[in-house]
Amino acid sequence: MTDAAFDPGVLRRLLDGRWAHVRDKVRETLHETDLPSGDHLDTEGHRALTLEQMRTLAKSGIPELGFPAEYGGGGDPAGSVVSLEMLPGNLSLMVKAGVQWGLFGGAVVALGTERHHERYLRDIMSLELPGCFAMTETGHGSDVQNLRTTATYDPAAQEFVVHTPHEAARKEYIGNAARDGRMAVVFAQLITEGGNHGVHALLVPIREQSGKVAGGVRIEDCGRKAGLNGVDNGRIYFDQVRVPRENLLNRYGDVAEDGTYSSPIDSVGKRFFTMLGTLIRGRVSVAATAGGAGKLALEIALRYGDVRRQFEKPGESGEVAVLDYLGHQRKLLPALAKSFALHFAQQELVASLQETLGSGDERAQRELESRAAGLKAVTTWHATETIQACREACGGAGYLSENQLAGLKADTDVFTTFEGDNTVLLQLVAKGLLTNYKDQFDELGTLGLAKFVADQWVGAVFERTATRSLVQRIIDRSGEDDILDRGWQLKMFDDRENHVLDGLARRLRKADKSNAFEVFNNAQDHVLRAARVHIDRVVLEAFVGAIDRCEDEATATILDKLMDLYVLSNIEADKAWFLEHERINPRRAKAITQAVNDLCMQLRPHAVELVESFGIPRQWLTAPIATGAERARQDRMAEHDQQLGTV
Amino acid sequence: MTDAAFDPGVLRRLLDGRWAHVRDKVRETLHETDLPSGDHLDTEGHRALTLEQMRTLAKSGIPELGFPAEYGGGGDPAGSVVSLEMLPGNLSLMVKAGVQWGLFGGAVVALGTERHHERYLRDIMSLELPGCFAMTETGHGSDVQNLRTTATYDPAAQEFVVHTPHEAARKEYIGNAARDGRMAVVFAQLITEGGNHGVHALLVPIREQSGKVAGGVRIEDCGRKAGLNGVDNGRIYFDQVRVPRENLLNRYGDVAEDGTYSSPIDSVGKRFFTMLGTLIRGRVSVAATAGGAGKLALEIALRYGDVRRQFEKPGESGEVAVLDYLGHQRKLLPALAKSFALHFAQQELVASLQETLGSGDERAQRELESRAAGLKAVTTWHATETIQACREACGGAGYLSENQLAGLKADTDVFTTFEGDNTVLLQLVAKGLLTNYKDQFDELGTLGLAKFVADQWVGAVFERTATRSLVQRIIDRSGEDDILDRGWQLKMFDDRENHVLDGLARRLRKADKSNAFEVFNNAQDHVLRAARVHIDRVVLEAFVGAIDRCEDEATATILDKLMDLYVLSNIEADKAWFLEHERINPRRAKAITQAVNDLCMQLRPHAVELVESFGIPRQWLTAPIATGAERARQDRMAEHDQQLGTV
Repeated sequence: MTDAAFDPGVLRRLLDGRWAHVRDKVRETLHETDLPSGDHLDTEGHRALTLEQMRTLAKSGIPELGFPAEYGGGGDPAGSVVSLEMLPGNLSLMVKAGVQWGLFGGAVVALGTERHHERYLRDIMSLELPGCFAMTETGHGSDVQNLRTTATYDPAAQEFVVHTPHEAARKEYIGNAARDGRMAVVFAQLITEGGNHGVHALLVPIREQSGKVAGGVRIEDCGRKAGLNGVDNGRIYFDQVRVPRENLLNRYGDVAEDGTYSSPIDSVGKRFFTMLGTLIRGRVSVAATAGGAGKLALEIALRYGDVRRQFEKPGESGEVAVLDYLGHQRKLLPALAKSFALHFAQQELVASLQETLGSGDERAQRELESRAAGLKAVTTWHATETIQACREACGGAGYLSENQLAGLKADTDVFTTFEGDNTVLLQLVAKGLLTNYKDQFDELGTLGLAKFVADQWVGAVFERTATRSLVQRIIDRSGEDDILDRGWQLKMFDDRENHVLDGLARRLRKADKSNAFEVFNNAQDHVLRAARVHIDRVVLEAFVGAIDRCEDEATATILDKLMDLYVLSNIEADKAWFLEHERINPRRAKAITQAVNDLCMQLRPHAVELVESFGIPRQWLTAPIATGAERARQDRMAEHDQQLGTV
Repeated sequence: MTDAAFDPGVLRRLLDGRWAHVRDKVRETLHETDLPSGDHLDTEGHRALTLEQMRTLAKSGIPELGFPAEYGGGGDPAGSVVSLEMLPGNLSLMVKAGVQWGLFGGAVVALGTERHHERYLRDIMSLELPGCFAMTETGHGSDVQNLRTTATYDPAAQEFVVHTPHEAARKEYIGNAARDGRMAVVFAQLITEGGNHGVHALLVPIREQSGKVAGGVRIEDCGRKAGLNGVDNGRIYFDQVRVPRENLLNRYGDVAEDGTYSSPIDSVGKRFFTMLGTLIRGRVSVAATAGGAGKLALEIALRYGDVRRQFEKPGESGEVAVLDYLGHQRKLLPALAKSFALHFAQQELVASLQETLGSGDERAQRELESRAAGLKAVTTWHATETIQACREACGGAGYLSENQLAGLKADTDVFTTFEGDNTVLLQLVAKGLLTNYKDQFDELGTLGLAKFVADQWVGAVFERTATRSLVQRIIDRSGEDDILDRGWQLKMFDDRENHVLDGLARRLRKADKSNAFEVFNNAQDHVLRAARVHIDRVVLEAFVGAIDRCEDEATATILDKLMDLYVLSNIEADKAWFLEHERINPRRAKAITQAVNDLCMQLRPHAVELVESFGIPRQWLTAPIATGAERARQDRMAEHDQQLGTV
């Protein structure tokens, strides 16, 4: 495909964006260091290899990127998220790294104070201290506020007593727990002077240096999982385990020696959400990783589809490359276009993470949380669907482990439900939109939402994206009513979001104290939809912004086509809404389907080069079907056929 | 749920249907014999266990069901398909059984003659002779007619020489090949007297009794796969391997000692499709198994959702069972309704298999093939989607191997592309519909289709289902234009199929010799859609027939609701088409969404009992979350909360 009109180098630079130096650093590191997936090993072997690879990674300088500079870190939390996008070929390693440096280390940084930083951060970065993030319980996963583990302060001993009152309160699915972790950040209801001050985090040793489980702690192995078997997930029970008072991560709440509780934030609910808000990086990282995995899967399937041939063209010799079939293009190319769109949206999200973290801007923080929740949901679902489509597009070859799709599928599957269940996350997004980001911290529950909307609804308020003014200009100057007109496309997305939100607000306004649950529950599909169309619009605007930044005309042209495909396949999938609400008529609906087909055909010759532009480190592309074996076979067969004269 | 108004026993009998005795036999066998999944074992251990289980199964009397009575079989091929539906908890065993007794044994029965039956069938049934079905090649999976392995007759030696000319011609993904198989049914181009007579099958020993690989044969292990690792898939190469003339399975084509070829069917194409047609059982079995797996997944997810609680209802004590949330219902209940619909369609398919096999009715045979292809595609995609939804609905617990969904997902994933790639199968269905089952054996290729349609198109001809006259009566007597009116619903499905087919025919009529590929390829999405809406209609009619057979009023009432949910969620998903073609207006479109929500709420209390009615053998339900652990935890937590007085 060397005749493509656009310059892959230019496209790569645009895709690499502001953290290009981080991406290059990872590419360089992986060029020099092998970190192969251990999927072929048994559980213990896979875990051991992954721990070894963690040690290698610790020395690479990549994990420390996100830690504060004063303790030897890189002071670049956003950059550290970007680095994770580059590890899609070994997701057990990526997830274990995320647990150690993102969740465990990140919690110590964000919720702890100098005494914790001083004592632990260096050991966390170097992996001297492998740790766990013990938040989820068997009985409470999504509803973190209702965790049942307790940390009761004993003023006589100046210790906290950490306790698991019953099986539903055990810590569940905790990464690093079953084998390697020595310490855990444990989330528990903080009780002192007889009062419960809500969920707080504290450091609890779970194993001695030797690996022996600490007294009062019981750990069970979660055993085999669908994927990610290099990560040692476990369950932790605490039986009246005592830790010093100083082990409380006390940035947002502290207990004095005498047991007096104090916090810079009065409201229990607001305190809880503030603490959770500092952990936003985990969610952004999952979206990053899911995006990376989807791109790798697409690269494998597109490279195979480009050379794999099946069935003869009537009246011509030779067989047809499967990617030349429209049906095959439709499985893969709209997913490729959406991967570009989500890539640019993720870029914006990471930039806004960088700007918001520590800025004290509460509204920006709420927007960031909403955006992170929504993009995490949409990106992880996209990854699941895309990898599935890629597996099917590669047929039996896609089912063999050697061709990587099996592992990508199994490893990423849990992304849709961990670090926040996607359904719950979309509800958070919808609530954020409806409440216009007012500080309803104590009322974010169902009743709170319903009441708020009934009382104060004044219409949907747009979250501003970085490119909103540009988008508005495009809409305003658009006179054309054409499906390929950018202004028309943007207006469609705007319009849909407004309308869906307006309708939702009208429905929820009927709620009162007696029927709040029923009203909310009956509208749940509407709530989820509102969040989705909102995120769709945010993603689209990020794409617009990226094309606007692109100074090379040929590259912008191909990106324009990808954006058309993203927009029109989105509208096509949601055609019912646009017809139902008379935004399009039947004739236009048909034109949109035809346009999607046309765009697939136009983009097909560039497919491989486009997916290569993401610059996934070459170490991760090992599938024989994507690295020459299939082409060699086809060539040999053609040669043989020719000798026989059978074709 | 003991207060449900319908009688689960009555429903079970209806679902068990005509082969209830087979289902009961399997339930009984599995009650007495443990055949647990070996998913937790390494590859070699898993394969060894599966072979052991095959030996146990061989003694149960189940596998011989499908073989001719004169050789000690049960003479009930349809019953043998039904038996496979009942093994969803150990899919490696089911697939290996399918390879041995369905594909390998089935090919010897269908393509061989007395000399083969006499010599091999008893050993095949008893597993004395483990065998392979070596059809697929690396270079040709879907396009079987173009296989490149050759079987060249040598009259001097009265032997066939079987040969793999190049890597693309090696046999690929062959079950039983890597470890256990001793003999293979090998599909190859039959060459004699210098002429190629097309693909034929012959018996080729691949290992000696001791397990040593036979001379001239090379076998590679396909290695780990996404799932089904108890099945030993391998690649087979033949280097001028000689077998006696008598090893040709000669029912549809024979070679005399002097090399003269003869066949009861003159046309090469017709011969090929006739031979393939006899192997229909494999495809029907895959649909059966996929159906069983989807039901087991639903039972796990529904049992968990029924007791798993999360988030409090405002103003009330206690948390809400997750299956009470509309969003959760929408993930699982339309899938449950579709599982009922597909179950009844599969029942009809199996009955028509029974009636058609060996009847010599060519039109019935074509209809059977089309139906089997379509149902295989729709059912396997349904299984993939449903198991995915179930996994997500169970959150982190769904990701743990102990809760079975991981295994179900991994094992069934390949079903969408093996025994016929679903996309290719849907095209077969569409071609069948368009050609009105005329004997276009030599022209089933792209050009053939286009030409045929251009020349002879006279409008879509309905394949008659068993209940077509009943359906027509319901439509005719329907006066009501209500979305819950059965006549209206049936008319919608009829209408859609007719319209989509008409439109497709119009498009294809534009094809001539110069543009056939382009015309066909541009319409490929339309072709696939035509097949899908056709199958949707066939499935719906099977559901109508089943309710008609139900004599118990309360049971019929609940089935009516399930059918409403199946129909309306189908229309909802395809709303765009109905709006675009003015079959419904926007107001009705909204009413349909509301009706789906209402039906979910109405069916929710009966969900567990409904899914239980499928009567999946209890041996397969081992997931702790579905067998009491979660309920016990929730009870203990509630008790503890009450003691604390915190709730």
